[in-house]
Amino acid sequence: MTELEQRRRTVQTALAGHKIDALLVSSPANIRYLTGYAGSNGLALVTPSETHFFTDPRYALEASATITCKLHIAKRPLIEEVAGIVKRKKLKKIGVEPAWLNLDQHQKLKDLLPLGASLKPLPGIVDTLRMTKSQAEIDHIRKSVRVNSEAYARTLRRVRLGMKERDIAAELDYQMRLHGAEKPAFDTIVAAGARTALPHAQPTDKRLEENDLLLIDMGACLDGYMSDMTRMAFLGPPTKRVKTLYDAVLEAQMAAIEAVKPGVTAARVDGAAREVLKRRGLDRQFVHSTGHGLGLEIHESPRIGKKDHTKLTAGMVITIEPGAYIDSFGGVRIEDTVLVTPNGCEILTPTTKEFVHL
Amino acid sequence: MTELEQRRRTVQTALAGHKIDALLVSSPANIRYLTGYAGSNGLALVTPSETHFFTDPRYALEASATITCKLHIAKRPLIEEVAGIVKRKKLKKIGVEPAWLNLDQHQKLKDLLPLGASLKPLPGIVDTLRMTKSQAEIDHIRKSVRVNSEAYARTLRRVRLGMKERDIAAELDYQMRLHGAEKPAFDTIVAAGARTALPHAQPTDKRLEENDLLLIDMGACLDGYMSDMTRMAFLGPPTKRVKTLYDAVLEAQMAAIEAVKPGVTAARVDGAAREVLKRRGLDRQFVHSTGHGLGLEIHESPRIGKKDHTKLTAGMVITIEPGAYIDSFGGVRIEDTVLVTPNGCEILTPTTKEFVHL
Repeated sequence: MTELEQRRRTVQTALAGHKIDALLVSSPANIRYLTGYAGSNGLALVTPSETHFFTDPRYALEASATITCKLHIAKRPLIEEVAGIVKRKKLKKIGVEPAWLNLDQHQKLKDLLPLGASLKPLPGIVDTLRMTKSQAEIDHIRKSVRVNSEAYARTLRRVRLGMKERDIAAELDYQMRLHGAEKPAFDTIVAAGARTALPHAQPTDKRLEENDLLLIDMGACLDGYMSDMTRMAFLGPPTKRVKTLYDAVLEAQMAAIEAVKPGVTAARVDGAAREVLKRRGLDRQFVHSTGHGLGLEIHESPRIGKKDHTKLTAGMVITIEPGAYIDSFGGVRIEDTVLVTPNGCEILTPTTKEFVHL
Repeated sequence: MTELEQRRRTVQTALAGHKIDALLVSSPANIRYLTGYAGSNGLALVTPSETHFFTDPRYALEASATITCKLHIAKRPLIEEVAGIVKRKKLKKIGVEPAWLNLDQHQKLKDLLPLGASLKPLPGIVDTLRMTKSQAEIDHIRKSVRVNSEAYARTLRRVRLGMKERDIAAELDYQMRLHGAEKPAFDTIVAAGARTALPHAQPTDKRLEENDLLLIDMGACLDGYMSDMTRMAFLGPPTKRVKTLYDAVLEAQMAAIEAVKPGVTAARVDGAAREVLKRRGLDRQFVHSTGHGLGLEIHESPRIGKKDHTKLTAGMVITIEPGAYIDSFGGVRIEDTVLVTPNGCEILTPTTKEFVHL
């Protein structure tokens, strides 16, 4: 059995436990996980005995060459085709993914269902499976992480005073692609100077100046799998204040990594970073959670935050990325992609965390 | 009044006609259209007297510097904050965007609403406004189109036998960025040889060979505004069969462009392309619609397809992109970004449609 078949089998087996006759999968990442389809218009319906995949004629040739479950090429809206199968197979209770089905599709499907059939929102069935990565998935992520770090290293060598944030981001993305990435995992963040205090800064025409902090947050998407890393540099010899900030965040990051092992909750890992920053008087400057799972999506379960009590298990891949942001001064974030192992964790990101001076 | 204020005013004025006390805006493009916010976590609530914008602390500094309506920085899920305002302002009937609100958020909001308040799905209120572009928006699109064509020209000069689809795509995206684009408008399509028969091909390691057709479908995103263009080239002197295919698609594209003017329906423009391909015996090889609106999103209303009877008006920006795809031989698509003008249309895309031989 192939890995895709195994995954579909696992979902099929889970249906009865949720008291449903089928699961409609709308999340693009879940669809890719179960069928391999990576295009922009697909739906999957998993029944106890088979999986149906639906797409439109633009993808007909590709899909017929690659899809190994029941393939439906629909000229009408896919949701109508799904309703047709529900009718034909006399399915009664259909689970749907509430975070991925919009009101519009939900209403259309409801209107088309035969009498006696109904929809049941069931979050996270496939997402929960995806939390724990297979060996093949871990290999993909390792490759993605390596390519990402390689692109970072090659770009950093070219960074000079006077360069624009925007041009550094363009170079990072280009290097990533040249080394095999399909695309960036998200809009690459390059922020300099006081703009580093914006955790999700979009690169601008700001040029690097002396004594600027430089924050680079980047990830690659390779074979569909994501990586995620944040590194800091300083333009010139770092001031004492900047070094203190950097050291505090690094200590918090290492404390969180130290806490990662099977059985520990996501909230506990988040707490480990938060406690360090609190001791340094920086807890109110840490305005986001410590990290997140990643894989086919850049943000997956679990969320390494205060309220997520998921217990970590070996095979999970998460980011650890505390930060501290000081308005009109600047911010520091340090982020690695980390694999939970049977005894603790492995930092996948090979890039040094020494505070680089350019 | 700024353009953003005018847009909000227009939506506010429209609320009464839809018998709602407020509109919850969930579409990222609609949020950007009304507030200027371009991040990844925002919601807007338009009431007759004011617009509320909600985001999380990661965006606090940026948002407080740029948002000109009521700003709420929420530590809890944004939808809870929205419910709070609904309660405080005693709003009763809340319009929601059914294509952009997922079941999850819909349920949460319903559960939090005060007694007597309810939700009403209302598709397209903001989307309809966005169909007709302002002068400032048209200027943004012109710039996006120009940068896109410049990146294409610079890359095409470097295309050689033996290059990989993937590397051409990387170069196109890099050139785009160097010339001012924020990012590609969508995953750049580069397909060579028989792979051109896949309308949505993802670039692979396939290398350019002699007598390969080459299809490049690319767009830039600049100041948030999209462009979209498809061009074909041939590696060597084109064969008769390929020339015939190219000429048929070009004739269809020109016929559709010829049909574009205010008052004509989208379906009629689609029909103009389809009739030409039918005369050439290629109508069954044309497996998608003729085009789509574009602006803050790469696919917007109207859809230039059989079933869309929207009448074109001056200020709409659409693509015209018929194609014909022949399994295991190859496909041709030719696409321009086109502005509907008072008397007809203007082709914004400056790149030649001569069939290029490399």
